[in-house]
Amino acid sequence: MVVNAQHEAQADSAMVANIYNEVLANAECYENLRYLCKNIGQRLAGSENAGKAIEWGKTTLSNYKPDDVFLMPVDVPHWSRGSNEYGNYYLTTMQTDNKVRTKPALTALGGSVGCEGEIVAEVVEVKSFDELKALGENKVKGKIVFFNKAMDPLLINTGAAYGGAYPIRGDGPSEAAKLGAVACLIRSLTLADDNYPHTGGTHYQDSIPKIPAAALSSVAARQLSADLKTDPHLAFTLHLSCVDYGRTMQANVVAEIKGTKFPDEYITIGGHLDSWDIGEGAHDDGTGIVQSIEVLRTMIALGYKPKHSIRVVLFINEEFGNDGGETYARVCKENGLVHVAAIESDGGGFSPKGFNCELNDAQFALFKSWSTVLEPYGLSVFRRGGSGVDIRPLKDDRVALFGLNVDGQRYFDYHHSNNDVFENVNKRELELGAAAMASLVYMIDQTGLPANP
Amino acid sequence: MVVNAQHEAQADSAMVANIYNEVLANAECYENLRYLCKNIGQRLAGSENAGKAIEWGKTTLSNYKPDDVFLMPVDVPHWSRGSNEYGNYYLTTMQTDNKVRTKPALTALGGSVGCEGEIVAEVVEVKSFDELKALGENKVKGKIVFFNKAMDPLLINTGAAYGGAYPIRGDGPSEAAKLGAVACLIRSLTLADDNYPHTGGTHYQDSIPKIPAAALSSVAARQLSADLKTDPHLAFTLHLSCVDYGRTMQANVVAEIKGTKFPDEYITIGGHLDSWDIGEGAHDDGTGIVQSIEVLRTMIALGYKPKHSIRVVLFINEEFGNDGGETYARVCKENGLVHVAAIESDGGGFSPKGFNCELNDAQFALFKSWSTVLEPYGLSVFRRGGSGVDIRPLKDDRVALFGLNVDGQRYFDYHHSNNDVFENVNKRELELGAAAMASLVYMIDQTGLPANP
Repeated sequence: MVVNAQHEAQADSAMVANIYNEVLANAECYENLRYLCKNIGQRLAGSENAGKAIEWGKTTLSNYKPDDVFLMPVDVPHWSRGSNEYGNYYLTTMQTDNKVRTKPALTALGGSVGCEGEIVAEVVEVKSFDELKALGENKVKGKIVFFNKAMDPLLINTGAAYGGAYPIRGDGPSEAAKLGAVACLIRSLTLADDNYPHTGGTHYQDSIPKIPAAALSSVAARQLSADLKTDPHLAFTLHLSCVDYGRTMQANVVAEIKGTKFPDEYITIGGHLDSWDIGEGAHDDGTGIVQSIEVLRTMIALGYKPKHSIRVVLFINEEFGNDGGETYARVCKENGLVHVAAIESDGGGFSPKGFNCELNDAQFALFKSWSTVLEPYGLSVFRRGGSGVDIRPLKDDRVALFGLNVDGQRYFDYHHSNNDVFENVNKRELELGAAAMASLVYMIDQTGLPANP
Repeated sequence: MVVNAQHEAQADSAMVANIYNEVLANAECYENLRYLCKNIGQRLAGSENAGKAIEWGKTTLSNYKPDDVFLMPVDVPHWSRGSNEYGNYYLTTMQTDNKVRTKPALTALGGSVGCEGEIVAEVVEVKSFDELKALGENKVKGKIVFFNKAMDPLLINTGAAYGGAYPIRGDGPSEAAKLGAVACLIRSLTLADDNYPHTGGTHYQDSIPKIPAAALSSVAARQLSADLKTDPHLAFTLHLSCVDYGRTMQANVVAEIKGTKFPDEYITIGGHLDSWDIGEGAHDDGTGIVQSIEVLRTMIALGYKPKHSIRVVLFINEEFGNDGGETYARVCKENGLVHVAAIESDGGGFSPKGFNCELNDAQFALFKSWSTVLEPYGLSVFRRGGSGVDIRPLKDDRVALFGLNVDGQRYFDYHHSNNDVFENVNKRELELGAAAMASLVYMIDQTGLPANP
């Protein structure tokens, strides 16, 4: 048995070496990303561009000749920021008749209502919901509430810092509206000190008036905060041209390689094809898309015949309601599909460090035993907790969920902004992530990663 | 004893948390780097700019008010590429009288001799010294030898890939000259597919004719290789305007905090202040310089009184003969200075992963026991082998040598090229490296890292 185990470990190491060599020598993920970012670009779910991305995904996957490629219809929202959004203000304390207006860099939050004309109101700055509530309706009514809360730079894990600031973006507008605010501004969720505003979904609570909401760049937020100290009564002019078009039908793109031994048991690999409607959705999540496609390309290029059926899924609409992930899990369940595992890449195309996972104890023990095979490739993080938004709806007692863990220090510099472009993705870092995912798929496919091995 | 050990571990963790909080909240290393890159810029040893950098280093360190700051004279080479370097060629197979010249992006290797006028010669392409020798003098004499050897993209460790291609840059010109070549071109040592040529030191062997040597960008090397297949007899025109000004005196900058308990035992932290003479020397090694300064700033800001004497050393001329490191070790030895440890950052200002080290077994065991304190900050690499070029001359039986280990996948995209600029350094990644170094200094200072603990 020991000899067998050694033999298997050697065979695994050899195959993982083949995977890395194939990817680092022949990967097409970087050029696929260039096409997705430059020839299609931003692709908010529901938009015409998202439709083009779906067609591109289907064609690109088909070119690698898997056993099947199909579209799975998904009902998605269709919202647009429109073509005209701006803010400006001037200091009433200026000693001139020709008062120069400051024009802070801002962008509407995803799902925001538009403004009828311009909103002109004073601004009240707070850092938290508690501070807002302490002010009370008297001091908030008729005002624009400005949540000036930064992501915590002291947290080493930037995802945790994002999580800490995230509730402001989601619930800030409704919390402000409860006290009679007429609009809501937030400081962008970023660790960078620059002039890119970062959008992202906001969610109006039921039976609360919907007020327009926008994110200021970190530089603009700092400036506004300073200007409010000089002139607490400055009047902020805001215009957003957002339109809600209701819902429309788009699709997840699914490619499949039939398993040779367990064709009815599935391993799904994916990322989300939609992006926000500014920038190019390069790191979020173009990289996850092209890495997932690269896993398929690599397996086919190496002539690897998986025991289990392998699916690559390009999910539509993670950003604004997770319709793609929810639909995929529902359809799989309706069709009685058994999932062995699912793997997502949605943390940006940075140097991979390992995997986050949602596994039971027996699966986790087996997973950790693979470290001898994976550590030579810099994969040393084998951490429980977290996988991916798109695949989480698959969660049940059996399925093993994984998320590619990457060096995320720069992620929120780009995330949801005009700075999330192809040029900010490094070819090698992207490829190493794809190779890591393909290697994990191979290891899972070999063992089936049973709940009780 | 167990209680004591637990208590110590808690105290260590608390102090390391203080260090990280101080750096992530108040670091000045990013702004120091901006100044060094933008207001001084490239600073090849021996140059006027290197002199300015030395003055800047002394002033900057003095502003943090350590116990002492002084200059240690170092004899350095003074070479300049001059103001005019170019290459061009055209295909004799072109069916036109107005033949368009290709102008490949190139730059002289450091230390190259210049050309008297233009060299015009045919090009012979090889990938290795063996291939060159197999050609023999008949096929090489009077030609330009073009070493078209890429760094190996299949190696996960980019430093190893650099090491594999490095001998061509160092010895290529002399090996070519031995067979009568008139000049030498190499493919730049980079993993990027772009148009930046990368310089770096070359070394003429004794009693071999010195021939001009330059690096082509990876794009230019690919193009030239393709053109040579079309037209093996194309004539390449090369002009380099390099001048060797002999040697001159510059200085290491040394700042010191006196130890409270063991003032005669030293821990040295450093990087190299010189850079190549293209780009801004941001990652190589401006980041190591400002991180080392940040360690000092942090200790003083936290009011930490080290037991051992701490020195921050900004070494001059690592790139072209390691005079700063050699001189520092010699002077320390002459003055009977005992070194407990030395730490260098010279792998770029990327996300830190841990430390490389040169330690004996007892020291390594103690070092590894610190992983519980350091791993929460993403420091999981505790690897024997390698430290830093500047500090290695200190090596003896007692001293513990460390090099900051970072995610080096992008390093050689920038290294020694016009692409090594401030904008390619991420503030957070830079700061995390400084905090990692400061934390290691603290741990060493607490234990003294004895050879036999």
